[in-house]
Amino acid sequence: MDAINRQWTLVKRPEGDDFAAALKWQETAKPVPADGQALVRTIYLSLDPANRLWMKDEPSYMPPVPLDGPMYGGIIGVVEASHTPDYAVGDIVTGLGGWSDYKVIVPGEMSKISPIPGVPLTAFISVLGATGLTAYFGLLDVGKPKAGETVVVSAAAGAVGSIVGQIAKIKGCHVIGIAGSAAKCAKLTGEWGFDAAINYRTEDVRARLAELAPARADGGGGVDVYFENVGGEIGNAVYENLAMRARVALCGMISQYNVVGQQTGADLSKILMRRATIEGFLILDYFSRAGEAVADLAKWVAAGQIRYDEDVIDGLENTLSAFERLFKPGGEHTGKLIVKVSALD
Amino acid sequence: MDAINRQWTLVKRPEGDDFAAALKWQETAKPVPADGQALVRTIYLSLDPANRLWMKDEPSYMPPVPLDGPMYGGIIGVVEASHTPDYAVGDIVTGLGGWSDYKVIVPGEMSKISPIPGVPLTAFISVLGATGLTAYFGLLDVGKPKAGETVVVSAAAGAVGSIVGQIAKIKGCHVIGIAGSAAKCAKLTGEWGFDAAINYRTEDVRARLAELAPARADGGGGVDVYFENVGGEIGNAVYENLAMRARVALCGMISQYNVVGQQTGADLSKILMRRATIEGFLILDYFSRAGEAVADLAKWVAAGQIRYDEDVIDGLENTLSAFERLFKPGGEHTGKLIVKVSALD
Repeated sequence: MDAINRQWTLVKRPEGDDFAAALKWQETAKPVPADGQALVRTIYLSLDPANRLWMKDEPSYMPPVPLDGPMYGGIIGVVEASHTPDYAVGDIVTGLGGWSDYKVIVPGEMSKISPIPGVPLTAFISVLGATGLTAYFGLLDVGKPKAGETVVVSAAAGAVGSIVGQIAKIKGCHVIGIAGSAAKCAKLTGEWGFDAAINYRTEDVRARLAELAPARADGGGGVDVYFENVGGEIGNAVYENLAMRARVALCGMISQYNVVGQQTGADLSKILMRRATIEGFLILDYFSRAGEAVADLAKWVAAGQIRYDEDVIDGLENTLSAFERLFKPGGEHTGKLIVKVSALD
Repeated sequence: MDAINRQWTLVKRPEGDDFAAALKWQETAKPVPADGQALVRTIYLSLDPANRLWMKDEPSYMPPVPLDGPMYGGIIGVVEASHTPDYAVGDIVTGLGGWSDYKVIVPGEMSKISPIPGVPLTAFISVLGATGLTAYFGLLDVGKPKAGETVVVSAAAGAVGSIVGQIAKIKGCHVIGIAGSAAKCAKLTGEWGFDAAINYRTEDVRARLAELAPARADGGGGVDVYFENVGGEIGNAVYENLAMRARVALCGMISQYNVVGQQTGADLSKILMRRATIEGFLILDYFSRAGEAVADLAKWVAAGQIRYDEDVIDGLENTLSAFERLFKPGGEHTGKLIVKVSALD
């Protein structure tokens, strides 16, 4: 990695899950920071379901990734050159980078990380980064679970879902995870301590939830908090089993991101009948409160109360195939998907 | 109406909108109240979209109407005989009755009405009854509009919708109604004072809302509060135009009640992106606070700030055809649909 900058360029908006046609490997000249800028070399690149939304030609919570530029992604990087007092060479930083070796940044664009002894650097884009914050604020601020309540999370073996379930356990809830393979379900109820797991590829989610969280004749029972990561039929199966005044924390709907044509909409009948609430949230809105989440998460990780998986792929050239795995239902990927782009030293 | 009791009996669960096959006209003996009971004669019967849900074979917010019994409906009646100190002959009462001449009730089953001089009795099942309360609490408690915000209501020329829009105007909001005919739209912006109306049968609701409540580049604009009465494609067109942190007060989804097979689900993409909330509510939960609503509503009606339509059909025998009109998209029915079953005196 010398004077060139390797990158995955978004050359067209992907159709469905045809990412191979949309992303092109290119090698360009290593950028040179101007006065007031710094050059960041990517160490770790975070791959997340939401990246798929950024590829679309419609503004979501940020503008679409421009065509013929590098695909965006959360990164951890190191400052390699700086012409601004805000960044010093050797600073470790995190923020929105690209699927590329290098990015030129301006002051304020990335935050500095102070490494914690004993904590791997990757944690700052997984459990102590946007992933952990999403789980933390989505569950606690939006879902507002009370001890003894039933919490359901979909994509439960994923980066966010696995942390949601463990936080819910810490808060004294009855936790049910939905995932796409027997191995994932075993992990949920084993290593991650969920009370129950449902394999949506072999079980009837609706019927299993009705058994695991039965609605009672007095109007009680059912799912009090649903942390929604997938949408579609799985989402509707959970909605069908909501408790009175249930809260749905709408984090994402990965099952719908690649759908071409008519998506599967949400059946709101029980939202009405059970006086329930669906609330969308984005972690962007919580960055100013990151400190409180990181303090709790770091404490729980140190105490062994939260375990997290990281699935680290080596080499920027493998980013595309790694990204494709994120969208493979029932695939064996668990936890946080990260690409190691370069070595820190 | 002597010693017989005419009633519409629910003989089967309706398929789609085939109410004629589900409801059968029957004449039975006039019931005789036992000790501790009273006999109520129906004066006015309220017809509401939610009645359709009660016909289904699934518990909603109340158990399904039993087969081979009278269809349920909100009524105003007069006590004709009483064997309980709780009701006196001549008392005017309101509560859940039947599509029938008579109902035997027990203490607590219906509430007494104290007629207000100059206010027609029908108002107690329209603007001062569940209809007005639904509009009042759904808009103000669930939707929480602030002055200057944009409020959209669907089925805007209906009993609830027309009151929602007028309350929103009283609260200083910019109000857009969606209805199914040019005549209804003219009424919305004329008599009822809405700022704008969209005819969903001739206009592209999505595009019109984007014009009437444009999202701005700074992230502002759009629909702040949506009072949802219809669901389906109209609901999705509004969801597409929601403002940041918009509130959807989910009152009903009349477009889906008669659907056989797959319903049109809600597209939650913008609920996520705009950090919006959908909250289901039922007026049942607000009956204990009826006093505050009735005080405001009565004041606004007296001041001419709220006008309400009542569409009073004469004769219990015409209930079925009147009910069918409720579900006719673009039909000319506006306001509250009421059947006059008998005279007060």
